[in-house]
Amino acid sequence: MDKVNIEEKLSQFNDYWQPKIIGELNGQYVKLAKLKGEFVWHQHEKEDEMFMVIKGRLLIKLRDHDVILNPGEFFIIPRGVEHIPIADEEVQVMLFEPKSVINTGNIQDERTLDAIEFL
Amino acid sequence: MDKVNIEEKLSQFNDYWQPKIIGELNGQYVKLAKLKGEFVWHQHEKEDEMFMVIKGRLLIKLRDHDVILNPGEFFIIPRGVEHIPIADEEVQVMLFEPKSVINTGNIQDERTLDAIEFL
Repeated sequence: MDKVNIEEKLSQFNDYWQPKIIGELNGQYVKLAKLKGEFVWHQHEKEDEMFMVIKGRLLIKLRDHDVILNPGEFFIIPRGVEHIPIADEEVQVMLFEPKSVINTGNIQDERTLDAIEFL
Repeated sequence: MDKVNIEEKLSQFNDYWQPKIIGELNGQYVKLAKLKGEFVWHQHEKEDEMFMVIKGRLLIKLRDHDVILNPGEFFIIPRGVEHIPIADEEVQVMLFEPKSVINTGNIQDERTLDAIEFL
């Protein structure tokens, strides 16, 4: 039962595309991640996923349009919707999603990583 | 399927203690609220509740200790834990909680308000 300072948590890691769990509530995780480069097209069959940008500029490509997120903006990707996050420069994001989410969704490749507890 | 700009949403209302729903995912709501003054001691029997401060300084009193949140900090109040939010000056918060949450929890009084759709 401690408060969490987002900037402080972000200062404690530097790897990309490796979600860090910083909170848990009602079967959901709050996560932080640093993103750089292009991820992989994927979808989450049963989970909606929220991306909130803390720092940087994130492009989320969907099959039919693009979403550009700046700091203080969020986007909810509905379950079943294919997407790919792209970060030309480093982006810092906060994620809200069910505990069951796997970062690469329906795709299994070298980028598939379990989220790490970072409480 | 639009992105949400938090500052923009916050600029569109001025009432206190009336949660505004700005997102929905996995049975949870993302809400914004402006707080000023002292709320009411209450608890949520079945729901954990996340307060993230966007602007201002929020005091959350629990029965056994106090939590002070500044911008960029959040705190998760576990279900069943009595709490009272207190804002000496205006505070702007983002909330993340199940759709079933009622703002005053187990207490029913004139401050009990349904969250308003603000999508």
